[in-house]
Amino acid sequence: MTVTAEITQRIVELNYHYAQALDDRRLDDWPEFFVDECLYAIHPRENRDRGLEGFWIYCDSKAMMEDRVLSIKEVNLYNIHYDRHSISNLLVEDDGAGVYSARSNYMVVQTNVEGRSAIFSVGEYRDKVVLVDGEPKFREKIVIPDTFAVAPLLAIPL
Amino acid sequence: MTVTAEITQRIVELNYHYAQALDDRRLDDWPEFFVDECLYAIHPRENRDRGLEGFWIYCDSKAMMEDRVLSIKEVNLYNIHYDRHSISNLLVEDDGAGVYSARSNYMVVQTNVEGRSAIFSVGEYRDKVVLVDGEPKFREKIVIPDTFAVAPLLAIPL
Amino acid sequence: MTVTAEITQRIVELNYHYAQALDDRRLDDWPEFFVDECLYAIHPRENRDRGLEGFWIYCDSKAMMEDRVLSIKEVNLYNIHYDRHSISNLLVEDDGAGVYSARSNYMVVQTNVEGRSAIFSVGEYRDKVVLVDGEPKFREKIVIPDTFAVAPLLAIPL
Repeated sequence: MTVTAEITQRIVELNYHYAQALDDRRLDDWPEFFVDECLYAIHPRENRDRGLEGFWIYCDSKAMMEDRVLSIKEVNLYNIHYDRHSISNLLVEDDGAGVYSARSNYMVVQTNVEGRSAIFSVGEYRDKVVLVDGEPKFREKIVIPDTFAVAPLLAIPL
Repeated sequence: MTVTAEITQRIVELNYHYAQALDDRRLDDWPEFFVDECLYAIHPRENRDRGLEGFWIYCDSKAMMEDRVLSIKEVNLYNIHYDRHSISNLLVEDDGAGVYSARSNYMVVQTNVEGRSAIFSVGEYRDKVVLVDGEPKFREKIVIPDTFAVAPLLAIPL
Repeated sequence: MTVTAEITQRIVELNYHYAQALDDRRLDDWPEFFVDECLYAIHPRENRDRGLEGFWIYCDSKAMMEDRVLSIKEVNLYNIHYDRHSISNLLVEDDGAGVYSARSNYMVVQTNVEGRSAIFSVGEYRDKVVLVDGEPKFREKIVIPDTFAVAPLLAIPL
């Protein structure tokens, strides 16, 4: 089922606000884009295509995402300077019962302490979005990176 | 002549579906985005700017595109792992008589077998779009790559 | 205050036309996207985050932008081959009194004389947009590059 232009635009904007929070390093805001009962997972394309689990991150509630934010802040070993998310190619479908499925492409470009920028990760977002009091929220966000060389360097969420 | 937001959105989505088919490696779907009497060509910017032909690919019918799909599948020498198209900056004009001209930017990022991602090609799409039974289709898609170092590596369409 | 879909689309298109002028190397058109009393500045994120000025470019009128175009054309030392701007993640707010604030991400990919493409600069655009005779124009465009290694290579505007 196709959706209205308005719904598409709102889901696009949800993703843009999500990206902005990460790029601005407002990590506390990251779980706030999700409903309480949610799933956030990073599932590399190589594993997914082979039917393997091999998730890099798997948080099946907002509480678990909040825990993750705390641990990122404590460890704080990353020496990345800046992140920049570009989200494009978003397509939405209406799953019925108030749930929308969106698929989009993301690219994260990182700039290091010497001021050089390079692609850190590209891949797909597969989202399930619901409206809560009229506000769109993620019920599910599966990140499927094409890039798999960077797994050990993954510090903040994609 | 400017166009309605709805037409713009539909041509944007046509391009997103096109990109998704290529990124998912559904090559058989690639000609299906075109009408029978069509043109798909890759015309590098360097040649185009100098008024030279020098096309990398030139298919002037859907049948020719279908042949190309068969040959890509047979040869299958490419060792690319994944492609990822980002399409952005799309602007549409109404040419009249049911034809729309769209110009957009594309970037293809490839991820190799070691899981590293790099820019493969950037450039422009120049599209002519028509509606067939209410569905948008390409009557023409000219790909104009800025990047010309990769010509010998070009296996699947851009 | 949120804005209508139509205003958002028009500001998106203003940015796309702006990018197209730069990518087509139509430098004379560059100031034409601005009102007479305007600000165009490049303020690297590193300086901005620390509260420092350290602008790479600072033009506080359209006349000053026009001067800059002349000097770029005269010096003409750059050996870049092609630029390609991707603008994404644009979000708009209504500031009231006919002024709209937009924030977006940009990426400029440059292709050198050997035909190789690489990221030149990524960062943010912070725009103030007004309507002049129904046409959107920039009253302000602050470019905030994440990338700072390229400052000495910056020839044409971002």
